Amino acid sequence: MNSAKVWLVGAGPGDPELLTLKAVRALAEAQVVLIDDLVNPAVLAHCPQARVIPVGKRGGCRSTPQAFIHRLMLRYARQGRCVARLKGGDPCIFGRGGEEAQWLEARGIEVEVVNGITAGLAGATRCGIALTHRGVARGVTLVTAHTQDDSELHWQALAQSGTTLVVYMGVARLQQIRSGLLAGGLAPDTPVAMIENASLPQQREVRSTLVRMHEDALASSLKSPAVLVIGEVAALSDATGASLATRAAS
Amino acid sequence: MNSAKVWLVGAGPGDPELLTLKAVRALAEAQVVLIDDLVNPAVLAHCPQARVIPVGKRGGCRSTPQAFIHRLMLRYARQGRCVARLKGGDPCIFGRGGEEAQWLEARGIEVEVVNGITAGLAGATRCGIALTHRGVARGVTLVTAHTQDDSELHWQALAQSGTTLVVYMGVARLQQIRSGLLAGGLAPDTPVAMIENASLPQQREVRSTLVRMHEDALASSLKSPAVLVIGEVAALSDATGASLATRAAS
Repeated sequence: MNSAKVWLVGAGPGDPELLTLKAVRALAEAQVVLIDDLVNPAVLAHCPQARVIPVGKRGGCRSTPQAFIHRLMLRYARQGRCVARLKGGDPCIFGRGGEEAQWLEARGIEVEVVNGITAGLAGATRCGIALTHRGVARGVTLVTAHTQDDSELHWQALAQSGTTLVVYMGVARLQQIRSGLLAGGLAPDTPVAMIENASLPQQREVRSTLVRMHEDALASSLKSPAVLVIGEVAALSDATGASLATRAAS
Repeated sequence: MNSAKVWLVGAGPGDPELLTLKAVRALAEAQVVLIDDLVNPAVLAHCPQARVIPVGKRGGCRSTPQAFIHRLMLRYARQGRCVARLKGGDPCIFGRGGEEAQWLEARGIEVEVVNGITAGLAGATRCGIALTHRGVARGVTLVTAHTQDDSELHWQALAQSGTTLVVYMGVARLQQIRSGLLAGGLAPDTPVAMIENASLPQQREVRSTLVRMHEDALASSLKSPAVLVIGEVAALSDATGASLATRAAS
């Protein structure tokens, strides 16, 4: 009997306690674990039995090509091994989980996706920002500033959606994001929170506004990966995250 | 010493295995647990020691007023008890987590929010839909169709954002959602997946299109709570969720 299976596992935003019970089970069953370099290695405590293979692939610097990762998963699965592929955040929120599942299933491999907490949500929560605070935002939009073809996002629509905007992979493109959203009609003083190392003990946040965020990021040496939270909810807590400001009173 | 603390805990979308390790810890520490009626009671297995108080509050039918829930949490916390407030999904995604944290912190109570997997994400994943499938969607927007003041969403901006749209609490407003998005320029044949009981064994999905979703929901007796996934990614898997369609090939 061939028990081959690939788990595509969301390892969450960094805090190893934000792993789900299902992710823990997948890790416990895995014989081979492929780990992205944005995943906190502390989660490997749940798979002491597994062979662990780092498959880091940071934006821009493709240390492990995607095609190689595909073939690696396929090879182990065809050997009858249970494979867990650990990804930062959620596998299907900017994680290529859909592509990997599609590719493996087309080759007859059973795939199960395990959701994870995405960095934008966890980072915002930790600094006291409720992304959909009632009466302040009608919802939340998650976008990535990094694209396959370098095409621009639909800034005008995003600016006018009435939703909080969470931008992933945006640190290197702060000027374009600002231009796009200002041209789209978003107010220059729209609050912005820039969050580095979301959910980790070393999480750092820089509070700013749309028009100043590029300069403020430079001044505070904000590093990638970071998430940007753009919208009125970003003013909802003070810089220490200890309390919510009165302007948010519903 | 007063160890009073309120945990606002995301219980996830329904599948009890999608609880995080941190939520399990909060439940284990809790002396009093307030549970919403959209939370799967199976998660109470993690707090056999706690006093459990149901505080159901379904949209429209306010069995427990919000102000009463606030006072209940405050009362137990002031008695020095550790309180866990269990909410479906994530406390800060349409969960009023921000409001509750704000209200309690203003009264000197320590609050800690534990993120959870939101129903829209888990439901989509379970039927094989990657909400931000690369090359198909630039991101994802979560909105609720249910509002305090019955104001309409900014449909045109949402239609033109280039992101997958996930609508919570939308079953009773399918006609308004259709009208708004069609007027906003979204194509009538835009794929839609309507997902009931997201992530539970009895999850049921109805595949449709923007122009037909109201009739298809009626014909299949779709019940609230359900989430709608609107956008090209909703065509990415077949009705059984077993495989991803070739049109999604990147």
